[in-house]
Amino acid sequence: MLKIGIVGANGYSGAELVRLLARHPRAQLEMLISHRTKGTMLTAHYPHFQQIIEAGLEDMVPDEIAGRVELLFFATPSGVAKNWVPRFVDKGLKCIDLSGDFRLDGEAYRQWYKREPAPQKELDKAIYGLSEMNADRIKEAQLIANPGCFPTAALLGLLPPVQGGFIDTSFIVIDGKTGVSGAGRTPSLGNLFTEVNENTGAYKVGSHQHTPEIERFIKAFAGKEAKISFTPHLIPMTRGILCTIYAPLAKKVTTEDVRQYYRKVYKGRKFIRIRPAGSFPSTKEVYASNYCDIGVHVDERTGRLVVISAIDNLVKGASGQAIQNMNLLFGLEEDTGLDHVPVYP
Amino acid sequence: MLKIGIVGANGYSGAELVRLLARHPRAQLEMLISHRTKGTMLTAHYPHFQQIIEAGLEDMVPDEIAGRVELLFFATPSGVAKNWVPRFVDKGLKCIDLSGDFRLDGEAYRQWYKREPAPQKELDKAIYGLSEMNADRIKEAQLIANPGCFPTAALLGLLPPVQGGFIDTSFIVIDGKTGVSGAGRTPSLGNLFTEVNENTGAYKVGSHQHTPEIERFIKAFAGKEAKISFTPHLIPMTRGILCTIYAPLAKKVTTEDVRQYYRKVYKGRKFIRIRPAGSFPSTKEVYASNYCDIGVHVDERTGRLVVISAIDNLVKGASGQAIQNMNLLFGLEEDTGLDHVPVYP
Amino acid sequence: MLKIGIVGANGYSGAELVRLLARHPRAQLEMLISHRTKGTMLTAHYPHFQQIIEAGLEDMVPDEIAGRVELLFFATPSGVAKNWVPRFVDKGLKCIDLSGDFRLDGEAYRQWYKREPAPQKELDKAIYGLSEMNADRIKEAQLIANPGCFPTAALLGLLPPVQGGFIDTSFIVIDGKTGVSGAGRTPSLGNLFTEVNENTGAYKVGSHQHTPEIERFIKAFAGKEAKISFTPHLIPMTRGILCTIYAPLAKKVTTEDVRQYYRKVYKGRKFIRIRPAGSFPSTKEVYASNYCDIGVHVDERTGRLVVISAIDNLVKGASGQAIQNMNLLFGLEEDTGLDHVPVYP
Amino acid sequence: MLKIGIVGANGYSGAELVRLLARHPRAQLEMLISHRTKGTMLTAHYPHFQQIIEAGLEDMVPDEIAGRVELLFFATPSGVAKNWVPRFVDKGLKCIDLSGDFRLDGEAYRQWYKREPAPQKELDKAIYGLSEMNADRIKEAQLIANPGCFPTAALLGLLPPVQGGFIDTSFIVIDGKTGVSGAGRTPSLGNLFTEVNENTGAYKVGSHQHTPEIERFIKAFAGKEAKISFTPHLIPMTRGILCTIYAPLAKKVTTEDVRQYYRKVYKGRKFIRIRPAGSFPSTKEVYASNYCDIGVHVDERTGRLVVISAIDNLVKGASGQAIQNMNLLFGLEEDTGLDHVPVYP
Repeated sequence: MLKIGIVGANGYSGAELVRLLARHPRAQLEMLISHRTKGTMLTAHYPHFQQIIEAGLEDMVPDEIAGRVELLFFATPSGVAKNWVPRFVDKGLKCIDLSGDFRLDGEAYRQWYKREPAPQKELDKAIYGLSEMNADRIKEAQLIANPGCFPTAALLGLLPPVQGGFIDTSFIVIDGKTGVSGAGRTPSLGNLFTEVNENTGAYKVGSHQHTPEIERFIKAFAGKEAKISFTPHLIPMTRGILCTIYAPLAKKVTTEDVRQYYRKVYKGRKFIRIRPAGSFPSTKEVYASNYCDIGVHVDERTGRLVVISAIDNLVKGASGQAIQNMNLLFGLEEDTGLDHVPVYP
Repeated sequence: MLKIGIVGANGYSGAELVRLLARHPRAQLEMLISHRTKGTMLTAHYPHFQQIIEAGLEDMVPDEIAGRVELLFFATPSGVAKNWVPRFVDKGLKCIDLSGDFRLDGEAYRQWYKREPAPQKELDKAIYGLSEMNADRIKEAQLIANPGCFPTAALLGLLPPVQGGFIDTSFIVIDGKTGVSGAGRTPSLGNLFTEVNENTGAYKVGSHQHTPEIERFIKAFAGKEAKISFTPHLIPMTRGILCTIYAPLAKKVTTEDVRQYYRKVYKGRKFIRIRPAGSFPSTKEVYASNYCDIGVHVDERTGRLVVISAIDNLVKGASGQAIQNMNLLFGLEEDTGLDHVPVYP
Repeated sequence: MLKIGIVGANGYSGAELVRLLARHPRAQLEMLISHRTKGTMLTAHYPHFQQIIEAGLEDMVPDEIAGRVELLFFATPSGVAKNWVPRFVDKGLKCIDLSGDFRLDGEAYRQWYKREPAPQKELDKAIYGLSEMNADRIKEAQLIANPGCFPTAALLGLLPPVQGGFIDTSFIVIDGKTGVSGAGRTPSLGNLFTEVNENTGAYKVGSHQHTPEIERFIKAFAGKEAKISFTPHLIPMTRGILCTIYAPLAKKVTTEDVRQYYRKVYKGRKFIRIRPAGSFPSTKEVYASNYCDIGVHVDERTGRLVVISAIDNLVKGASGQAIQNMNLLFGLEEDTGLDHVPVYP
Repeated sequence: MLKIGIVGANGYSGAELVRLLARHPRAQLEMLISHRTKGTMLTAHYPHFQQIIEAGLEDMVPDEIAGRVELLFFATPSGVAKNWVPRFVDKGLKCIDLSGDFRLDGEAYRQWYKREPAPQKELDKAIYGLSEMNADRIKEAQLIANPGCFPTAALLGLLPPVQGGFIDTSFIVIDGKTGVSGAGRTPSLGNLFTEVNENTGAYKVGSHQHTPEIERFIKAFAGKEAKISFTPHLIPMTRGILCTIYAPLAKKVTTEDVRQYYRKVYKGRKFIRIRPAGSFPSTKEVYASNYCDIGVHVDERTGRLVVISAIDNLVKGASGQAIQNMNLLFGLEEDTGLDHVPVYP
């Protein structure tokens, strides 16, 4: 059994790692780490784990961790992993960071995250964990930068038509909609039920840190410069991300041409489901699962392509993809422990 | 007192007309008409009207109606008003149609609504009731085509920068989000709580009938041809529409330049609220009120304008604007009976 | 115009007072007081008030307040008003406290609120503001203890059959359901969208501070000792309280007998609506209004009475009833400024 | 592999059987039967099954079914299974009926369901599938009457203190709260998003058909006559049932005494989780899982016991318990294929 530690086990993506790893046939939850709530039981914070994971939360003690686990997940807010990962990497542990600390180059990180980046050595080492697009490099990685929730949905939806030359990348619009769990479990005014329920609005207009991440990996995986307009919206639901993507067509094609190209790109990738023409995914249809569902539409009237992609932000957008990357890293089948059927309704 | 009839009083926009008119100081609800449920009490369908409006639903009998009311609202599904309005107009009644029957030219109606249009004579007579943009003509109208919910939010947000020459109309994206009440009260699978709750998805991708309405009135009010990409999304909330609008800038301007232009265009219009720079409206902030809130952002990085507009789909997007038009039509102050403070939280 | 001050204008019941008083024909919002956020604009916290109430939040300076206002609402958490009210009462101001500070006798307050009670002198002065049951005394009051949200719904539903001798008070069960706004606007884990949405649970089982308030005023208004079991539940909705009340019948009666008795008790009281037999209120049917709707059922099979009462917790359960009491206190019609039609859907 | 047929595969509890059985290690979904939608693909109705269950819906042809499956689930509305089950039982198939057709004696069924009961022969054969209370008989059954959703939560919460003599059964109140999925997928006014969202109300007050089911099995499993007051409430959530149960204590005990008794009764039963004293379950904590969580409170002040039990109505309240019964019936471990961790948040 693969011995696992989770730093930040008390947050939502930490708890989602616990949910998924509790039933993973090859992994063993060895350490649940939470500096702030060390010494308490996980079930004190999450009673739904009663009789399933009866473990205590431990402090962040690097030497002890290094002796007990082989793989460490960082399910921490941005700004934490960059300080800790280097010493674990030096000790030979494998690390998967779910935060944004290793996804951008140093300069862009400084600009969009408003803080100092991780050391260059580790930035150079970090492999971007977009599983379906980067599996070969992920398998060899020591440090994986797990993609952001919006970039996962946006890139899986957008990369095929960019790679295939179907669209012009000079004016791409990505309109993102997210459930509230993406904001984590720390109480704040903006995440109160009373503020979010029966309400929809945009946030971080023109300034969301997932913008440069999407542009960077369009360049990395498709070789094209792209200037995207990305606007995230907060939707009154707990889980789910939907990205609605608009771009001008670069050549005359039909919806079916584009669909077939997606199917070719994602052939054999179990977690990507391309919808039949005329059908578009909604977030509930991937709920609590690791699927990314994609629908495409060639709008002949306007000469544009519309792509809609849906994921569960806590699974494919965070903890599920992290485990998918773990599977790749340790030579397991990509979907080991991840074959959940979406919960619907 | 102005004697009012409502055709389709049993639907959601009919009931919203009742809610608003029940406290209107100059209007009197004379007839509530519902062919399907005639002979029943309104409170049998809407117990919340108990002790407020204790009236019966009556059948559609044109001669009787013509004798009892001066103004007739049609709060009916598309395809109904076009058959009835002509005979009331001939009798000299004023009519305000909340459906799409008089908003498009005949050819576009046939194409997007998939049915025969209203007679040309009435189409020629119909005045588009976008109150803030068309008040002078509304005041003289006999037949008002009340705007669609999405077009109201989209046009109020989009017209100023088109009129001011701030944006290039060749690639406009309007990403729409709507609450479920826009779908009406007739039960259908897609509107069940279990299908909508904890869920978000797009519908009518590339084919929504509000698309040509928006394009037509960009042309009518700003003189520009525009090809818009419009994608509506169903959001798990009852009320509210948010439009997120993206367009390339046509000249170098700041957010503040654009804001000031909006303020100039909407000077004196009580129901339009332009947000301070950096602030963007959410739907709850206009809940149950007739306001349209608008936020703008010049994205210098991409050279694009982002506009976000929010309305309550049942008020400013339907019944509230219809009453605003009634006020204009009968020489009342525009906000008579419409000064509701948004209900928040 | 009656000059009003609101202490705690920045909380939800404070903001609800602002919403309702902004359109009250006889009241003028003279001072909005918030110690913690003094010096900021109300619209910085509640953008939905833009162009409606453009006022700043002021500090708590008793002498200045006494000079500017005639009536002071305390929309503060329990434990605040008891320290401030005495000095305003001494200066001759009228005060309406929306918190629990003046609803219980000192001993019960100490036991259930776990803090020291208000001075006995003010406790003696305080009149319980259950408008429909206590109007005569409210009219003469200087200090009004506005009822709690659950007690309002519970007592309005329960008092008539106790007064009429229809039920045995030895085993009364009140199962309460509340929207989340009752918990206020201060962020806490339990009120996060992600914790409340798609979820229902009980809280403060056997220990909610509204329990002794209900028992005290059953005794006060109906002269009966009652031991109630009261369990509040948090429901994934923003507004609304529903109380389902069960009690053994003390005599053989029909549903219609009991209904008629309610109608007699509440004759002329505009905000109480007794449902027809077989119809029961739901919370949305009183949304954003000051109504209390009540449905009753005599269950012959079990020999018990079931009563269901619904209010909007922020209106009839807090700010609306406070204004109703203000109206009584200042000789206005009870429903002045409170004639809102429920917002449905 | 055990060959399974599902009658009513197109409804919510049918789809939930598919979700759970798709990953069951010993079962094979051999036939999905839906008379009304025969000839279509399941994914046409439930796109979330794409790439997971790509099967067609078949017609109800008894002879063919008998030849292909060993076990037949009826996930049909009440009134269907009673007509079909007899002929399958005669052919030797095992049947598990999720509807109410075999839970009551004929007379009570006629009275509460307002239709003719199943033949007496099959009623005599039917074993009530409350897994934790009736495992021995379930193992030998040919026909299982799977319990209703409310009775499951109510009986699992209520039977231990009745069996243990802790409470007086003469005045039991069960206040039930349910998510909307219990109403099924057939569109109706009462289940529209717009009617249910931001709303809570009671339904079938004094007349819900689960009332006699609960009373019958209190008698059957605990030997006591009980007259319960049961009021179901519709809560704006998709899944989940919470029962809040009140009863007078029959002897002087502490919360801990009662807790220990529950633990004894449910020793070894994996799906029952008794909460620590002072902790009470909420529905989200069992979401999408087969758990029933129970919290208890002895209220010394009133001399009453309060019990709160939570289940997912579609899992433990329907399809999950049905599979648990299938496991018992075929000699498998009770939790085979049912070890889902609750999805939280």
